[in-house]
Amino acid sequence: MFKIIIATVANKAGVLNRVSSLLRRRNFNIISLTVAPMIDKNFSKMIIRLEVGVDSVQVSKHLHKIVNVIKVSSYDESDVILYESLFLQVNATRAFRSEILQFGTIYGANIVCLDEKNIAFQYSAHPDKIDEFIEIMLPFGIKDVVRSGVIAIGK
Amino acid sequence: MFKIIIATVANKAGVLNRVSSLLRRRNFNIISLTVAPMIDKNFSKMIIRLEVGVDSVQVSKHLHKIVNVIKVSSYDESDVILYESLFLQVNATRAFRSEILQFGTIYGANIVCLDEKNIAFQYSAHPDKIDEFIEIMLPFGIKDVVRSGVIAIGK
Repeated sequence: MFKIIIATVANKAGVLNRVSSLLRRRNFNIISLTVAPMIDKNFSKMIIRLEVGVDSVQVSKHLHKIVNVIKVSSYDESDVILYESLFLQVNATRAFRSEILQFGTIYGANIVCLDEKNIAFQYSAHPDKIDEFIEIMLPFGIKDVVRSGVIAIGK
Repeated sequence: MFKIIIATVANKAGVLNRVSSLLRRRNFNIISLTVAPMIDKNFSKMIIRLEVGVDSVQVSKHLHKIVNVIKVSSYDESDVILYESLFLQVNATRAFRSEILQFGTIYGANIVCLDEKNIAFQYSAHPDKIDEFIEIMLPFGIKDVVRSGVIAIGK
Protein backbone atom coordinates (compact mmCIF):
# COMPACT_ATOMS: atom_id res chain seq x y z
CA MET A 1 0.00 0.00 0.00
CA PHE A 2 1.37 3.40 -1.03
CA LYS A 3 0.89 6.74 0.67
CA ILE A 4 1.73 10.13 -0.74
CA ILE A 5 3.15 12.74 1.62
CA ILE A 6 3.19 16.35 0.43
CA ALA A 7 5.27 18.60 2.68
CA THR A 8 6.08 22.29 2.48
CA VAL A 9 9.48 22.98 4.00
CA ALA A 10 11.62 26.06 4.57
CA ASN A 11 14.86 25.97 2.58
CA LYS A 12 17.07 25.88 5.64
CA ALA A 13 20.13 23.68 6.06
CA GLY A 14 19.38 20.18 7.24
CA VAL A 15 15.65 19.88 6.64
CA LEU A 16 15.99 17.13 4.00
CA ASN A 17 18.43 15.46 6.33
CA ARG A 18 16.01 15.50 9.25
CA VAL A 19 13.10 14.25 7.16
CA SER A 20 15.10 11.35 5.73
CA SER A 21 16.46 10.49 9.20
CA LEU A 22 12.98 10.38 10.64
CA LEU A 23 11.64 8.14 7.88
CA ARG A 24 14.63 5.89 8.31
CA ARG A 25 14.23 5.61 12.08
CA ARG A 26 10.54 4.78 11.70
CA ASN A 27 11.37 2.16 9.05
CA PHE A 28 9.18 3.66 6.37
CA ASN A 29 10.18 2.45 2.96
CA ILE A 30 10.67 5.43 0.61
CA ILE A 31 9.73 4.47 -2.96
CA SER A 32 10.49 7.88 -4.36
CA LEU A 33 11.21 11.35 -3.10
CA THR A 34 11.36 14.70 -4.85
CA VAL A 35 12.29 18.13 -3.51
CA ALA A 36 12.00 21.25 -5.64
CA PRO A 37 11.53 24.98 -5.04
CA MET A 38 8.15 26.68 -4.78
CA ILE A 39 7.41 30.13 -6.28
CA ASP A 40 8.84 31.72 -3.15
CA LYS A 41 12.34 30.24 -3.40
CA ASN A 42 12.63 30.26 0.41
CA PHE A 43 10.36 27.24 0.45
CA SER A 44 10.41 23.85 -1.23
CA LYS A 45 7.80 21.20 -1.73
CA MET A 46 8.67 17.62 -0.92
CA ILE A 47 6.69 14.74 -2.39
CA ILE A 48 7.32 11.35 -0.84
CA ARG A 49 5.85 8.07 -2.04
CA LEU A 50 5.95 5.62 0.84
CA GLU A 51 5.18 1.97 1.28
CA VAL A 52 3.39 1.85 4.61
CA GLY A 53 1.50 -0.46 6.91
CA VAL A 54 -1.28 0.30 9.35
CA ASP A 55 0.67 2.91 11.31
CA SER A 56 0.68 5.32 8.40
CA VAL A 57 -1.34 8.00 10.20
CA GLN A 58 1.68 8.55 12.43
CA VAL A 59 4.04 9.60 9.67
CA SER A 60 2.62 13.06 8.97
CA LYS A 61 2.32 13.79 12.69
CA HIS A 62 5.98 13.01 13.20
CA LEU A 63 7.05 14.97 10.12
CA HIS A 64 5.08 17.96 11.32
CA LYS A 65 7.20 18.16 14.48
CA ILE A 66 10.41 18.65 12.49
CA VAL A 67 11.93 22.14 12.53
CA ASN A 68 11.32 24.00 9.22
CA VAL A 69 8.58 21.63 8.11
CA ILE A 70 5.73 24.09 7.58
CA LYS A 71 2.87 21.91 6.39
CA VAL A 72 2.36 18.18 5.86
CA SER A 73 -0.50 16.33 4.18
CA SER A 74 -0.84 12.59 3.78
CA TYR A 75 -2.97 11.03 1.04
CA ASP A 76 -4.03 7.69 -0.31
CA GLU A 77 -2.98 7.40 -3.93
CA SER A 78 -6.61 7.34 -5.03
CA ASP A 79 -7.11 10.86 -3.61
CA VAL A 80 -4.42 12.59 -5.65
CA ILE A 81 -3.49 13.11 -9.28
CA LEU A 82 -0.10 11.51 -9.82
CA TYR A 83 2.53 12.07 -12.50
CA GLU A 84 6.03 10.87 -13.06
CA SER A 85 8.67 11.62 -15.69
CA LEU A 86 10.93 9.07 -17.30
CA PHE A 87 14.02 8.95 -19.47
CA LEU A 88 14.48 5.56 -21.09
CA GLN A 89 17.27 4.56 -23.43
CA VAL A 90 16.71 1.34 -25.32
CA ASN A 91 18.75 -0.76 -27.79
CA ALA A 92 17.28 -0.09 -31.20
CA THR A 93 19.09 -1.71 -34.05
CA ARG A 94 17.47 -1.57 -37.48
CA ALA A 95 15.57 -4.83 -37.03
CA PHE A 96 13.59 -3.54 -34.04
CA ARG A 97 13.57 0.21 -34.56
CA SER A 98 10.16 0.60 -36.15
CA GLU A 99 8.53 -1.66 -33.56
CA ILE A 100 10.05 0.41 -30.76
CA LEU A 101 9.04 3.70 -32.38
CA GLN A 102 5.50 2.36 -32.75
CA PHE A 103 5.30 1.61 -29.04
CA GLY A 104 6.61 5.12 -28.35
CA THR A 105 3.83 6.60 -30.49
CA ILE A 106 1.13 4.49 -28.82
CA TYR A 107 2.19 5.72 -25.38
CA GLY A 108 2.74 9.29 -26.53
CA ALA A 109 6.40 9.30 -25.50
CA ASN A 110 8.80 11.91 -26.92
CA ILE A 111 11.97 10.92 -28.74
CA VAL A 112 14.89 12.89 -27.34
CA CYS A 113 17.69 11.05 -29.11
CA LEU A 114 17.98 8.56 -31.94
CA ASP A 115 21.06 7.04 -33.53
CA GLU A 116 22.01 3.82 -35.32
CA LYS A 117 21.88 1.72 -32.18
CA ASN A 118 19.72 3.53 -29.60
CA ILE A 119 16.56 5.43 -29.01
CA ALA A 120 16.05 7.62 -25.94
CA PHE A 121 12.48 8.46 -24.92
CA GLN A 122 11.12 11.02 -22.51
CA TYR A 123 7.70 10.10 -21.16
CA SER A 124 5.47 11.69 -18.51
CA ALA A 125 2.44 9.86 -17.17
CA HIS A 126 0.88 8.15 -14.15
CA PRO A 127 3.53 5.98 -12.43
CA ASP A 128 1.58 2.82 -13.37
CA LYS A 129 1.83 3.83 -17.04
CA ILE A 130 5.56 4.45 -16.57
CA ASP A 131 5.92 0.91 -15.17
CA GLU A 132 4.00 -0.43 -18.17
CA PHE A 133 6.16 1.46 -20.67
CA ILE A 134 9.36 0.17 -19.06
CA GLU A 135 7.91 -3.38 -19.06
CA ILE A 136 7.12 -3.20 -22.77
CA MET A 137 10.65 -2.00 -23.61
CA LEU A 138 12.42 -4.63 -21.48
CA PRO A 139 12.68 -7.32 -24.20
CA PHE A 140 14.59 -4.92 -26.50
CA GLY A 141 17.30 -4.33 -23.91
CA ILE A 142 17.13 -1.21 -21.78
CA LYS A 143 20.38 0.71 -21.46
CA ASP A 144 19.35 3.38 -19.03
CA VAL A 145 16.30 4.36 -17.00
CA VAL A 146 15.85 7.56 -15.02
CA ARG A 147 12.57 8.17 -13.20
CA SER A 148 11.73 11.47 -11.51
CA GLY A 149 9.70 10.00 -8.68
CA VAL A 150 6.03 10.96 -8.43
CA ILE A 151 4.60 14.44 -8.12
CA ALA A 152 1.06 14.87 -6.86
CA ILE A 153 -1.71 17.37 -6.31
CA GLY A 154 -4.95 16.81 -4.42
CA LYS A 155 -8.01 16.14 -6.58
CA MET B 1 26.14 27.92 -11.93
CA PHE B 2 24.31 24.62 -11.79
CA LYS B 3 25.75 21.13 -11.72
CA ILE B 4 23.88 17.90 -12.22
CA ILE B 5 24.89 14.90 -10.13
CA ILE B 6 23.61 11.49 -11.18
CA ALA B 7 24.21 8.82 -8.55
CA THR B 8 23.34 5.14 -8.47
CA VAL B 9 22.73 4.02 -4.89
CA ALA B 10 21.83 0.75 -3.20
CA ASN B 11 18.42 0.87 -1.53
CA LYS B 12 19.80 0.39 1.95
CA ALA B 13 18.64 2.28 5.01
CA GLY B 14 20.29 5.64 5.47
CA VAL B 15 21.84 6.28 2.08
CA LEU B 16 19.65 9.32 1.33
CA ASN B 17 20.39 10.50 4.83
CA ARG B 18 24.15 10.24 4.34
CA VAL B 19 24.06 11.97 0.96
CA SER B 20 21.99 14.88 2.26
CA SER B 21 24.21 15.19 5.35
CA LEU B 22 27.34 15.35 3.22
CA LEU B 23 25.90 18.02 0.91
CA ARG B 24 24.80 19.99 3.94
CA ARG B 25 28.20 19.80 5.65
CA ARG B 26 29.93 20.92 2.47
CA ASN B 27 27.46 23.81 2.09
CA PHE B 28 26.28 22.84 -1.35
CA ASN B 29 22.95 24.39 -2.15
CA ILE B 30 20.52 21.72 -3.38
CA ILE B 31 18.10 23.21 -5.92
CA SER B 32 16.25 19.97 -6.48
CA LEU B 33 16.68 16.31 -5.67
CA THR B 34 14.88 13.23 -6.92
CA VAL B 35 15.25 9.60 -5.89
CA ALA B 36 13.40 6.82 -7.66
CA PRO B 37 13.89 3.09 -8.22
CA MET B 38 15.81 1.60 -11.13
CA ILE B 39 14.70 -1.55 -13.00
CA ASP B 40 16.43 -3.66 -10.37
CA LYS B 41 14.46 -2.41 -7.36
CA ASN B 42 17.48 -2.94 -5.12
CA PHE B 43 18.97 0.21 -6.60
CA SER B 44 17.79 3.78 -7.00
CA LYS B 45 18.96 6.65 -9.10
CA MET B 46 19.43 10.02 -7.48
CA ILE B 47 19.48 13.20 -9.53
CA ILE B 48 20.67 16.30 -7.73
CA ARG B 49 20.72 19.81 -9.17
CA LEU B 50 23.25 21.84 -7.22
CA GLU B 51 24.30 25.45 -7.14
CA VAL B 52 28.06 25.29 -6.89
CA GLY B 53 31.17 27.41 -6.99
CA VAL B 54 34.69 26.54 -8.13
CA ASP B 55 35.10 23.56 -5.79
CA SER B 56 32.48 21.54 -7.64
CA VAL B 57 34.88 18.80 -8.71
CA GLN B 58 35.08 17.73 -5.09
CA VAL B 59 31.41 16.88 -4.72
CA SER B 60 31.34 13.65 -6.72
CA LYS B 61 34.57 12.47 -5.09
CA HIS B 62 33.04 12.92 -1.65
CA LEU B 63 29.77 11.30 -2.65
CA HIS B 64 31.62 8.32 -4.05
CA LYS B 65 33.09 7.57 -0.63
CA ILE B 66 29.65 7.11 0.94
CA VAL B 67 28.62 3.55 1.76
CA ASN B 68 26.04 2.19 -0.72
CA VAL B 69 26.75 4.87 -3.30
CA ILE B 70 27.67 2.72 -6.30
CA LYS B 71 28.39 5.23 -9.03
CA VAL B 72 28.48 9.02 -9.26
CA SER B 73 28.76 11.29 -12.29
CA SER B 74 28.87 15.06 -12.30
CA TYR B 75 27.84 17.11 -15.33
CA ASP B 76 27.52 20.68 -16.49
CA GLU B 77 23.94 21.37 -17.47
CA SER B 78 24.97 21.85 -21.09
CA ASP B 79 26.17 18.22 -21.21
CA VAL B 80 22.89 16.56 -20.27
CA ILE B 81 19.32 16.47 -21.48
CA LEU B 82 17.13 17.88 -18.70
CA TYR B 83 13.44 17.48 -18.01
CA GLU B 84 11.16 18.50 -15.20
CA SER B 85 7.48 17.89 -14.49
CA LEU B 86 5.08 20.48 -13.12
CA PHE B 87 1.60 20.65 -11.66
CA LEU B 88 0.25 24.18 -11.68
CA GLN B 89 -3.16 25.28 -10.45
CA VAL B 90 -4.22 28.76 -11.50
CA ASN B 91 -7.24 31.00 -10.82
CA ALA B 92 -9.35 30.90 -13.95
CA THR B 93 -12.61 32.75 -13.74
CA ARG B 94 -14.61 33.17 -16.94
CA ALA B 95 -12.96 36.47 -17.88
CA PHE B 96 -9.48 34.94 -18.09
CA ARG B 97 -10.18 31.31 -18.88
CA SER B 98 -9.69 31.38 -22.64
CA GLU B 99 -6.49 33.40 -22.33
CA ILE B 100 -5.10 30.88 -19.84
CA LEU B 101 -6.15 27.92 -21.98
CA GLN B 102 -4.46 29.53 -24.97
CA PHE B 103 -1.17 29.79 -23.06
CA GLY B 104 -1.57 26.15 -22.08
CA THR B 105 -1.97 25.17 -25.73
CA ILE B 106 1.05 27.23 -26.82
CA TYR B 107 3.28 25.47 -24.28
CA GLY B 108 1.74 22.06 -24.89
CA ALA B 109 0.63 21.66 -21.28
CA ASN B 110 -2.03 19.09 -20.37
CA ILE B 111 -5.20 20.08 -18.54
CA VAL B 112 -5.74 17.75 -15.61
CA CYS B 113 -8.61 19.59 -13.95
CA LEU B 114 -10.96 22.41 -14.89
CA ASP B 115 -13.85 23.89 -12.97
CA GLU B 116 -15.64 27.25 -12.71
CA LYS B 117 -12.79 28.92 -10.86
CA ASN B 118 -9.59 26.93 -11.54
CA ILE B 119 -7.51 25.20 -14.12
CA ALA B 120 -4.83 22.68 -13.21
CA PHE B 121 -2.10 21.97 -15.76
CA GLN B 122 0.48 19.23 -15.98
CA TYR B 123 3.52 20.20 -18.00
CA SER B 124 6.83 18.44 -18.68
CA ALA B 125 9.74 20.29 -20.25
CA HIS B 126 13.23 21.70 -19.74
CA PRO B 127 13.41 23.43 -16.32
CA ASP B 128 13.89 26.83 -18.04
CA LYS B 129 10.61 26.28 -19.90
CA ILE B 130 8.95 25.33 -16.61
CA ASP B 131 10.17 28.63 -15.09
CA GLU B 132 8.80 30.49 -18.12
CA PHE B 133 5.40 28.79 -17.90
CA ILE B 134 5.10 29.63 -14.18
CA GLU B 135 6.14 33.23 -14.92
CA ILE B 136 3.45 33.60 -17.58
CA MET B 137 0.75 32.27 -15.23
CA LEU B 138 1.76 34.47 -12.26
CA PRO B 139 -0.47 37.47 -13.13
CA PHE B 140 -3.60 35.27 -13.07
CA GLY B 141 -2.94 34.13 -9.50
CA ILE B 142 -1.29 30.79 -8.94
CA LYS B 143 -2.90 28.60 -6.29
CA ASP B 144 -0.51 25.71 -6.22
CA VAL B 145 2.77 24.70 -7.83
CA VAL B 146 4.44 21.32 -7.57
CA ARG B 147 7.70 20.70 -9.44
CA SER B 148 9.33 17.30 -9.71
CA GLY B 149 12.91 18.51 -9.70
CA VAL B 150 15.02 17.78 -12.77
CA ILE B 151 15.82 14.42 -14.28
CA ALA B 152 18.75 14.08 -16.62
CA ILE B 153 20.54 11.73 -19.01
CA GLY B 154 23.92 12.27 -20.61
CA LYS B 155 23.81 13.44 -24.22
